[in-house]
Amino acid sequence: MTGDGLFDIARSAEVVNARIDDSVSPRLADVMRVVTRHAHAAIKEAAITQDEWMAAIGFLTQTGHMSNDWRQEFVLLSDVLGISMLVDGLNHQRPAGATENTVLGPFHVANAPRRQLGDSISADNKGEPTLVIGRVTDTAGRPIAGATLDVWQANDDGFYDVQQPDAQPKWNLRGVFETDAEGRYWFTSVKPRFYPIPDDGPVGTLLRALGRHPFRPAHLHFIVGAPGYDEAVTHIFVPDCPYLHQDPVFGVKPSLIADFQHTVDKAEQGQYGFSGPFWKVEWNFILDGARP
Amino acid sequence: MTGDGLFDIARSAEVVNARIDDSVSPRLADVMRVVTRHAHAAIKEAAITQDEWMAAIGFLTQTGHMSNDWRQEFVLLSDVLGISMLVDGLNHQRPAGATENTVLGPFHVANAPRRQLGDSISADNKGEPTLVIGRVTDTAGRPIAGATLDVWQANDDGFYDVQQPDAQPKWNLRGVFETDAEGRYWFTSVKPRFYPIPDDGPVGTLLRALGRHPFRPAHLHFIVGAPGYDEAVTHIFVPDCPYLHQDPVFGVKPSLIADFQHTVDKAEQGQYGFSGPFWKVEWNFILDGARP
Repeated sequence: MTGDGLFDIARSAEVVNARIDDSVSPRLADVMRVVTRHAHAAIKEAAITQDEWMAAIGFLTQTGHMSNDWRQEFVLLSDVLGISMLVDGLNHQRPAGATENTVLGPFHVANAPRRQLGDSISADNKGEPTLVIGRVTDTAGRPIAGATLDVWQANDDGFYDVQQPDAQPKWNLRGVFETDAEGRYWFTSVKPRFYPIPDDGPVGTLLRALGRHPFRPAHLHFIVGAPGYDEAVTHIFVPDCPYLHQDPVFGVKPSLIADFQHTVDKAEQGQYGFSGPFWKVEWNFILDGARP
Repeated sequence: MTGDGLFDIARSAEVVNARIDDSVSPRLADVMRVVTRHAHAAIKEAAITQDEWMAAIGFLTQTGHMSNDWRQEFVLLSDVLGISMLVDGLNHQRPAGATENTVLGPFHVANAPRRQLGDSISADNKGEPTLVIGRVTDTAGRPIAGATLDVWQANDDGFYDVQQPDAQPKWNLRGVFETDAEGRYWFTSVKPRFYPIPDDGPVGTLLRALGRHPFRPAHLHFIVGAPGYDEAVTHIFVPDCPYLHQDPVFGVKPSLIADFQHTVDKAEQGQYGFSGPFWKVEWNFILDGARP
């Protein structure tokens, strides 16, 4: 009975997809056909009840109502279901050795202050002093001069400045650096700590119902780019964080886990402006030249 | 690398699903596993780009923002993707001969006025006079006395009363009837017309992008019930409507298409209170006794 346009459980997705007119965007038509087919298959496989479907409608509605200019609950849902990482991964397959991407996250702010190599990005001086140092190169190991590194991280209490506009200095733990002629960069900061993703909305309720916690393993965010290279949206993860293997948004990749060395060398302390021991992270970013 | 909790494109859904704790509701866990698996499969199959994913996030957010106490855009999305009919169909498989369900739609209002057999539900007297008459029986053909029929329809301009609170009398084209001792019912109304589903939101934009129109084929809505019987949420469709085979919400089933007979018999006109020719629809509702 599908040839007449009428509904039929057995061929339900085909009936719906047959309504798409030949005149429309072929890409939209293809995507909607795939989405509709999998949506119908999931509902049949799980034998969703009417009450469950209404609960799903309510969940999606709450998720929409929770979203506004500064909070995107659907992105958070995409993150905790591993979809953000999947889409990122499908679209950023790089040659071996190139720095891998991970989730952008919701707390990047464009146009952070430009800083000088060696500057500190910590304006509240809370946390354990840390040096981040390394080079930006291409996949053949050649230094890239003038590459930009846009870095941001949460403070020692587990919040980004934009989450605490009254309690943190503006632009705390953010900055944009540029590599020198040898592709080198270095700056000081504080050792990142784990923190919860926003869990006071429907996505937090879902996580709890699934027995999952909200704690992202400790990390620094980076966007590293240079003209002609594929921009890397990435993290550096702290290796001894208890949540390293349980990131609620699945952002951890083995290649992004750094070594944080506790450094007591007095000469190095003086060289980088520390008054005592500090953590040292040596990290090279390797950009793929294949920007489309 | 999935055993360590880290993301892996090839086994992405398995990594996400492995995070569900054993302590949680087995049903929720099962449903989320199926949904996550199909969501990841759809994204891989369609090779969704980052821009497309952000467009999807934007669409879902708009759909949430469009939803409020009187407009449910996610239900509308479910309707136009055939999901509402699929869920209804999976949950209401009835024995052959029993009246089939179709979509409830967003315009049912609880506690409509109780009316006497033979009353008119049209308070604005717009449209072609129509008699709806028949019986409510069980699947063995035995009449069900005292069954209730909750009926509602759009007016001759294609709007429900709740869509035009200032332009239509309250409770226009709504009413609750009760069958007599022989299971009979009859009332008068006007012949339904096709009308557009609300298409000024993101779902309307999606329909247009897919080359689909918003016009639901002409119908009357019914909820028919009696103690001990499975309630039928159903329609009677007008057979000569130009959109009968193109219902945007896929509500049409062959068994729900009625015969509207143009009646000029003077005696019948007088019997049912008409002053001229009218449309006559004879329609029996057959309830399944298997209410769980």
